[in-house]
Amino acid sequence: MLATKSTEPERVLAEANGRPFVCCAFSNWLASSSTMTSSLCRQLVRVGARTLKGAGVNPPIVGPGSVRTIASQGPGLCHDTLLFRQLFDTYSYTYTYLLADRKSKDAIIIDPVYEMAERDLQVIKDLGLNLRYALNTHVHADHVTGTGVLKQNIPSCQSVIAAISEAKANVKVNDGDKVKFGDFDLEIRATPGHTNGCLTFVLPECGFAFTGDALLIRGCGRTDFPQGNAETLYKSVHEKIFSLPDNFMLYPGHDYTGQTVTTVAEEKTMNRRLTKDIKAFTEIMKNLKLPMPKQIAKALPANMECGVFDE
Amino acid sequence: MLATKSTEPERVLAEANGRPFVCCAFSNWLASSSTMTSSLCRQLVRVGARTLKGAGVNPPIVGPGSVRTIASQGPGLCHDTLLFRQLFDTYSYTYTYLLADRKSKDAIIIDPVYEMAERDLQVIKDLGLNLRYALNTHVHADHVTGTGVLKQNIPSCQSVIAAISEAKANVKVNDGDKVKFGDFDLEIRATPGHTNGCLTFVLPECGFAFTGDALLIRGCGRTDFPQGNAETLYKSVHEKIFSLPDNFMLYPGHDYTGQTVTTVAEEKTMNRRLTKDIKAFTEIMKNLKLPMPKQIAKALPANMECGVFDE
Repeated sequence: MLATKSTEPERVLAEANGRPFVCCAFSNWLASSSTMTSSLCRQLVRVGARTLKGAGVNPPIVGPGSVRTIASQGPGLCHDTLLFRQLFDTYSYTYTYLLADRKSKDAIIIDPVYEMAERDLQVIKDLGLNLRYALNTHVHADHVTGTGVLKQNIPSCQSVIAAISEAKANVKVNDGDKVKFGDFDLEIRATPGHTNGCLTFVLPECGFAFTGDALLIRGCGRTDFPQGNAETLYKSVHEKIFSLPDNFMLYPGHDYTGQTVTTVAEEKTMNRRLTKDIKAFTEIMKNLKLPMPKQIAKALPANMECGVFDE
Repeated sequence: MLATKSTEPERVLAEANGRPFVCCAFSNWLASSSTMTSSLCRQLVRVGARTLKGAGVNPPIVGPGSVRTIASQGPGLCHDTLLFRQLFDTYSYTYTYLLADRKSKDAIIIDPVYEMAERDLQVIKDLGLNLRYALNTHVHADHVTGTGVLKQNIPSCQSVIAAISEAKANVKVNDGDKVKFGDFDLEIRATPGHTNGCLTFVLPECGFAFTGDALLIRGCGRTDFPQGNAETLYKSVHEKIFSLPDNFMLYPGHDYTGQTVTTVAEEKTMNRRLTKDIKAFTEIMKNLKLPMPKQIAKALPANMECGVFDE
């Protein structure tokens, strides 16, 4: 007797007493890699293989830190439940991410770009999605957010930004909050340092994190803006991103070399700045001498209003 | 008694007598979603869940067309076996794909770009990969291939191109051939029409196809070059790409709108050109009146030699 109604098989890798085990579950069929853990496996499936938060279960079957998804590349565990699209703006080199629950079609978009809103709206329409939230990882200085335009076109869509940023938005979030779309919960992690309101969004069950400008592939966001602080950024990345499992896929806010994704393991060992000690890191960041972003004069005030067209 | 030695669980969705079924297999554990198919499931696992070509099995347990992977998004089934990176060149808007067997680290690269070779070499080095083959989907007219530079730097790497293209390469392939890297077999499909030697590369067990310029997101490659033929392209796409399962991910050779991926289902229903009938399609293609690619004078002769640095 299983409560799950899914007609799709689901696979869960979890830990019981420190030993990994695997469940394969169908609506009328269930098996575990270990007979010792098959009853726990049944419980896991009963609470829903895709809602492994321990909600409603006391003590939690799977609490924080006790679940490791088997996602080592791409959507991993979520390949048949999550619809995922990475989108790029070749002018500002910004990555926008569209994520949706395949079942309910509820969707979120992360860091949309104003000039690319028409494309984004078309993709959302083509895929038949209900856009619930447009989230910004931070108040961008290098492009105007597409949030306002998307909201104009999809009135049910709500804008989301860090409360501490003091930017205008429907939903102000803080570290530890969750943003729900369909059966998925996006976890909010505060990762300040590039700006004071920088957020990293984590989808733990899929092995994904969206790092905005806190962590870039082999690099990181600049820290020389008024709200920037190299030491704070260093701690954010080490405490909130490098603490994720090694195989988590990290999707950055930008890349200037045509790369699309990295992993925790790669950045922990090969990031050119963040593998240094904190003193060497702050020294590097102090001496970058980067030019001002081309669109900063327009972008900053517009983005404090969640995009120029936000009412 | 199972022959598979994998310590990782593997999941297979196949068809038996037209009915789908699922196997979940571990080194010492196996189960199927149907008791009726459990013996077939055992056989499937015995031939290796990741080598579902029916090799050595007569009659083939899973022959062409009889296997459906459950990959609906991203690496799907292959998330713990395939390392996959999509790379972009912002100048020619070309996508390069790096694929590797996580276990053996054997890798292939599809459509590398000359100017991006340094980046590609760095990524290959960072990930600790053994590059076995550099494949071109066709003789490109819009960028110089990076194949020659990659071969100079990684002498064990062999270049691959369609035999019919008459371009220089270590390995000349034809429709139906396979290119092996680690435990993976990349299937070669001839999809002429943009050029006479255009290939689509399919990784059936992962639900991936790399379509080069035969099929682009909501579009397709031009057919007004000397080797181009709109009717041929139409048939190639309909017979060799649209015949793949609906949920297969299609990775194009280019995108000019910042999109990264599409699916068979999307293109079958929403491609602006290829959803028309063949007559309307050829009419559209005849009237595109596109300018010549900026780099054509340099690219075509260089690419006939697999890149300017190919000896």
